[in-house]
Amino acid sequence: MIIAALQFQPAFLDVDANLSTLASYLESVDADLVVLPELCTSGYFFRDAEQLAAVAEDADGPSLRLFREIAAERNMAIVAGFAERDGAAIYNAAATVFPEGRVEIYRKVHLFAEEKRLFTPGDRGFPVITWGDRLRLGVMICYDWRFPEAARTLALRGAQVIAHPSNLVAAPRLWKPVMRTRSFENKVFTITANRNGEERRDDERLVFHGCSQIVAPNGTFLEEVDELYEGWLTAQIEPSKADEKAFSPWNDIMADRRPEAYEL
Amino acid sequence: MIIAALQFQPAFLDVDANLSTLASYLESVDADLVVLPELCTSGYFFRDAEQLAAVAEDADGPSLRLFREIAAERNMAIVAGFAERDGAAIYNAAATVFPEGRVEIYRKVHLFAEEKRLFTPGDRGFPVITWGDRLRLGVMICYDWRFPEAARTLALRGAQVIAHPSNLVAAPRLWKPVMRTRSFENKVFTITANRNGEERRDDERLVFHGCSQIVAPNGTFLEEVDELYEGWLTAQIEPSKADEKAFSPWNDIMADRRPEAYEL
Repeated sequence: MIIAALQFQPAFLDVDANLSTLASYLESVDADLVVLPELCTSGYFFRDAEQLAAVAEDADGPSLRLFREIAAERNMAIVAGFAERDGAAIYNAAATVFPEGRVEIYRKVHLFAEEKRLFTPGDRGFPVITWGDRLRLGVMICYDWRFPEAARTLALRGAQVIAHPSNLVAAPRLWKPVMRTRSFENKVFTITANRNGEERRDDERLVFHGCSQIVAPNGTFLEEVDELYEGWLTAQIEPSKADEKAFSPWNDIMADRRPEAYEL
Repeated sequence: MIIAALQFQPAFLDVDANLSTLASYLESVDADLVVLPELCTSGYFFRDAEQLAAVAEDADGPSLRLFREIAAERNMAIVAGFAERDGAAIYNAAATVFPEGRVEIYRKVHLFAEEKRLFTPGDRGFPVITWGDRLRLGVMICYDWRFPEAARTLALRGAQVIAHPSNLVAAPRLWKPVMRTRSFENKVFTITANRNGEERRDDERLVFHGCSQIVAPNGTFLEEVDELYEGWLTAQIEPSKADEKAFSPWNDIMADRRPEAYEL
């Protein structure tokens, strides 16, 4: 299976421009599973709820319609961060769109900074998405990296690959080794698709640091790029490698767990 | 508060020699809290239960008597890994010995490799040890590093400093960034006191890689040494720094947790 992550700079508040850019990128990649950044259709640094509301859409909106078309046409699964409207609530969400038209949505559980005044916290936990017998996929978004419970919960539920759409403003020297730890401590693949570039709002500036990466269950960096890179990272993987939780005849990182000794 | 970790090579099966070496090291360090490696009184690579039984002792044995004497004389707390006998059971344990004579024992929860045929798994979970108003201390041993739940449980129970006596055979490029993650994701100090040197048993050889380290709650390496270093690592810390779980007006790594979304 070929997996890929896109690193690029969305145009702030310009969904049409972003869908055009994304369509072009998606036409140019040969992969089975692709991961686009958090809020890749809209940008991130919203001034207020009105600005966010103007770009939020539901699963029948133009963004997911486009991703469904491309997923079917190119026969690939697409994980894409977007602002999801559901009634009065808006979630920082990531849709997984399959070639056959199925859509599964993850709603960000851990909200970062001003997201707390803009978005409703995810209310569906960390579901694992099964793609026939091809893949068991987990999704976490950006700041979920700080919480070992996010990736752990997905791994305990059988995820082989964790897609991690991101708009990380934290220093890569902090989050990169931690996301490697998430792969290593759970023996899963992780795909961090982090946007780059900057956004301005009045006299404030937010810088996103790129440095996207794909990490194997043994902690190996399969692919990593620098902050300024624009385009795809790809890696060929065998998802079932993530089912091997034993690392010796004596030890298995899941079987060795002692939940009765843990506090939640 | 001055904290310190000892990196050295114990003499395999020779408790008297190790106590003599440790007494000499302990007389030479000025610290409030010192951490000695896992099984520092006996070495590690036991052939069988008889070999282990010959070096196991209870809290009134010669090792803990010596540590109590030195702790009182030098006015410091000592965390020391040893083989603890309790009736028919032998635990891979770490005693925390206080100047006033109090002893608290942690029994290794996650057993590594052949420890499973030699030791009884820890049956008391991950208690946090309170030292008056000076310190709240957690202890985990060696392979506990692989499980995010170990350090997380200690941090949730209020640990400011996690002592991590070790006999790590894993590559430092694997465990060092993960232990840094344990500090960073919980905002606690971690002190890994890892032995070095090797032990032989028939035609088998086990190599321990040293590379002990002390990490701050923000992920900074306060002190780290190479594989061959023998002696103390020290750092001056303010334990209450570990009580600051917020990193901005918006976010607090503990308050932001969403346990209802986690699987244990």
